[in-house]
Order: sequence, then structure tokens, then C-alpha cells
Amino acid sequence: MFIGVDLGGTNIAAGLTDESGVILRRACVKTLSERGPEAVAKDIADICLNLCEQSGTDISAVRWVGIGSPGAVDSAAGRVLNAYNLGFADVPLADMVRAHLPDTKIHLENDANAAALGETAAGGAKGYASSVCVTLGTGIGGGIIIDGKIYTGFNGGAGEIGHHVIVADGVPCKCGRKGCWEQYASATGLIRLTKKTMDSAPESLMWRLSREHGKVGGRTAFDAMRAGDAAGRAVVDEYLNYVAIGITNIIDILQPEAVCIGGGIAGEGQPFLDALSPLVYGGVFKAGDKATALRLATLGNDAGIIGAGFLGLD
Amino acid sequence: MFIGVDLGGTNIAAGLTDESGVILRRACVKTLSERGPEAVAKDIADICLNLCEQSGTDISAVRWVGIGSPGAVDSAAGRVLNAYNLGFADVPLADMVRAHLPDTKIHLENDANAAALGETAAGGAKGYASSVCVTLGTGIGGGIIIDGKIYTGFNGGAGEIGHHVIVADGVPCKCGRKGCWEQYASATGLIRLTKKTMDSAPESLMWRLSREHGKVGGRTAFDAMRAGDAAGRAVVDEYLNYVAIGITNIIDILQPEAVCIGGGIAGEGQPFLDALSPLVYGGVFKAGDKATALRLATLGNDAGIIGAGFLGLD
Repeated sequence: MFIGVDLGGTNIAAGLTDESGVILRRACVKTLSERGPEAVAKDIADICLNLCEQSGTDISAVRWVGIGSPGAVDSAAGRVLNAYNLGFADVPLADMVRAHLPDTKIHLENDANAAALGETAAGGAKGYASSVCVTLGTGIGGGIIIDGKIYTGFNGGAGEIGHHVIVADGVPCKCGRKGCWEQYASATGLIRLTKKTMDSAPESLMWRLSREHGKVGGRTAFDAMRAGDAAGRAVVDEYLNYVAIGITNIIDILQPEAVCIGGGIAGEGQPFLDALSPLVYGGVFKAGDKATALRLATLGNDAGIIGAGFLGLD
Repeated sequence: MFIGVDLGGTNIAAGLTDESGVILRRACVKTLSERGPEAVAKDIADICLNLCEQSGTDISAVRWVGIGSPGAVDSAAGRVLNAYNLGFADVPLADMVRAHLPDTKIHLENDANAAALGETAAGGAKGYASSVCVTLGTGIGGGIIIDGKIYTGFNGGAGEIGHHVIVADGVPCKCGRKGCWEQYASATGLIRLTKKTMDSAPESLMWRLSREHGKVGGRTAFDAMRAGDAAGRAVVDEYLNYVAIGITNIIDILQPEAVCIGGGIAGEGQPFLDALSPLVYGGVFKAGDKATALRLATLGNDAGIIGAGFLGLD
């Protein structure tokens, strides 16, 4: 058995998993990172011990605890280098947790990388030795798996695919660059595009749908398109073009065996993938007969827990 | 000793090298690929035997022959999958050469990947375990080295960094996409940008320089800038911005230990790198304290021969 911990800005979510990635028992506490890293590390250790106690398992039966943390991580050293939304800078988090669990191995990794490992080991990219996992959420997260292992780059920071620029001098991004993929292909980007199109389409169904839901959301244009709204379809088409540009870029650079797409937008499911596929395959630089597979993520919010549990497999 | 063969659309260039990558003797014949792959393979074998004979070396002292070929290559199978400028499709080139050199190991790889290995093993990226080598020439070539080995992706096609889109729906590229990095940051892109700027700057020194050289070239704007021409500086500034966007994208995705820049434009040397560096470092997504080094390629046109010679080290 493994324990996977998904350390987030709001919650610490953890699961006791079997070795195929099935979550046997789960637990969640508030992160409250303003208490500082020592308190968070103590809570992580406590949640691990509680998971064991509740499931009648001795901690010695847990082969390791894997922790996915936001921000830049030095996994070899077990340090969180910087995680802005936790306020952590150069924190030896693995050692801090180990102080409370002295006989347990602790592995630490970036949370998006851990989630990518989860999808590759037990989710949408299962069976593929190399994959890039893309999360289209509020932002765009990414994780690169090569030969079944997380690829971190030499400094732990690889896989920031959301911040590669696809529109030179485009929309400013909080990372400091202009025109990052995240600004166009995240849910945030989709909502911006939806609002812009609505402004020039006063008759669009999107106005009624967004009033009914109290806001313009990531589903507004998709729902309108399904109801036959031309402006909704135009938004979705433009949005899919941006999604495809980034995915095709990743394939041209890395040619992974699979690209696995998750996050809220991927909840649109197979029709989303079916509409995206020709845009990607029409653009990729051909390399012989073998083409990267496009897959939907299947683990949802559990990818972080499950992937963290697999961290010791490396 | 190794023999490295750089198979090009025009020439087959080869070198007998020592194990540090020094070319001891070199030879070159016309490719004449229209004769078909068997004739080209025979010429590759003959050039290897001639190199040995001219240097008083028995072919048995050559540990292997490495061949860098344009196009998509399946290096494990020793096949050129497709190389448009040779007219080769699914050619078992390694076997064809081996038929003439039965006791010699033959390694085959994409030419840009071989050149990247050369720069990493013995050139500008020497000493770095991971690197991305970027060639800013007529187009943009690329090669990715991870842990000292060429990263090819699952199908041999990785590293097509020139065809990642940085301007969504931008300038059409021969690969079929619009707005590829190659259209903006290659010498061809620089020349397009130079001509466009000249059209709106009739007083620019670039007009006189290009008349003197008989054409607008990749150096026109750089030479004008050095002579104090404002329009020339504007071209160079805009061009450097495009170069930096692509390099920063690569770093955000891969965080290699070094990016090594070669090709004709890199002939501008250290001032080019000094102007480029702040644009790149100002944009990269920070990952702790360790930043990717930017280096100039040092092997020039020999990178392909030298890198091909190192192919057997993998």
C-alpha cells in the first residue's frame, strides 16, 4: 500500500491506495498554510497516521508516502523551492514530515507532475510509456512522463506548458509573459473569449444561458453550441483552435506516445476530443506512421492523490 | 576512432574522428539522391573505406559508422522513414550500408539530432547533461539531448522545435501550420522582417547595404544596427524578441541544463547572445535558483559529422 497526499492551497487531500492506484480510504483537512510549513508537515503526518488507524493498517505496511506540492520542487532533495500559494520558500518538507514518521519513506514532487504520473500509471494514459498530461482548468497545468518516469528538467521546473507563448505579444499573463497558451486555452481563456463574442452577438443564446447560471462559465459556449447557437459554435471553434495549437506544439517538440487531457474543460468528454483530434492531427509534423494518441484523463481530482501514491515507483 | 557521415540533400560529408570528436580526415561527394538509396548507400560505404585508406587505418579500427540523415528516422531499425529532400521513403539505409561494410556497426539518426549530440559531446553544450540545440538557419532545426542521449520521442520525430507555433494564425509555413517559430526566427524570417521594415523606412542604411551585397540578407539589419541605423536596430530588436519567445517556450517546457544556439544567425556571436539573454531570462518561468545556460554552438557545419561519429556512444 501507498499513501498519496495532494497538498493544495486550500486542502490537504490524502488517500491510502493499493498498488494499482485504487483509493482504499481517503481524508481531507484544511491546509491553512499561513500557520507555516512545520504545522502543515505535522498535519500531513497526522493524516497519514489517521488513514492507517481508520483502515486497521499499521504504518509499517505503507511502503511510502508521496506528496504532491504546488510550485517548484526539488524532488531529490525533498524540498519545496517556492510555492507562492502556500507562501513556502525553500522548505525541506520531506524531512519535516519524516520527523513525525521516522520509519516511513517520503517522496516529494510537483503536484502537476504527480497527477501526470497518476494518469499514466492508472488513468487515461495507462499503457503508454511516455505521455504529456495537460490540465485545462482555471490555468493550464502540465506534466511530462518519459519511460514511465516524471521528467522534471535539470532544476525540477519542466512541464510548464501553460506558459509557452502561442500568441507573440498577446494577452498578458501573471507569469510576466504575453500570449501564454494558458491565456487562451484554459477555462479562464474560454470565458474571456465567450464574453468577447457575446458582446458582438446580442441575440446569442449565450446571454440567456449565462443569466440562468448567474455568470459566464466554461460551459456557456459549449451548451449554446449544443442548442444550435451560431455564436456559441464560433466561440467553441476558436477555443478548440487555441487548444489544438498548444497540443500540436507539444507533440512537435516531444512526440510523446500519448497526450492526456484533463481539467474541467475535458468534462466535455468524447465530443470534445473528437472535435479536437482533426485539428491536432492536421497540424503535427509527420514522423513516419506512428502518431501520438489523444486521450481524456479519467482520474479527475483524484489524479493528484493517486499519482502521489505512485511517486516511490521511480 | 569513429566515422561520422552527414548525409545532406546536396553533399555526403564524412569525417574520420578520434574519440574526442576531432576530425582527423574528411571527405565529401555529391549526394545525387535521384540515383536512389542503393547508390547513395554504396557511396557512403565507399567514402568510409576511402577515409580509412587515405589515413592508413584499417576499417576494423573504426568502432562504428554513424550517419545523420535528413527527415524522420527510426534509429532502432536503421530506417529513413521519410526524407523529402532525398526522395527516400522507408529506406533501410543502415542495412544497405552494412551490406558493403559487413563487419562494421552502422548507426543512423536524424541529422539535426546528430548535430545536437555533436554540440553536446564536443561543442557549445559540452559539459551539460541535457541540452536543446537550436539551429537558426534557412529554417530552424532542433535536437534534444537528455542525460547525454538523443531524445527522439516514441516515433523518432521529436525536436521539431521550428514548427511550434508562436503566432496563432500567423505566417503560413510549408509544414501546413500557420505562425511557426521558423517563420519568424530563422534567417528567412529575419529577411522577411528586414524587407518589411525597409519598405516603411526609405532613409534606412539597410537600402544601401543590401544594394552593395546584391540582396537583403540575414546580416543586413545587424550591419545597419552596428552602423547606428535606427530602422536596423528596430528590425534586430523585433527579431530578437521572436527568437527569445521560442527559446523561452522550450525552457518552460523542458528546462534543459543548456540551450545551444547555432546556424548562420549565431555567427553574430557573443553580442547576439548578450542581447538575447535578458529577453529569455526575463520570461522564463522560474524554478528555484538554477537557470538554463545559453550557449553558442561552436562546431559550425562540422556538428553533423562530429555528432554522427558519436552516435554509437548511446
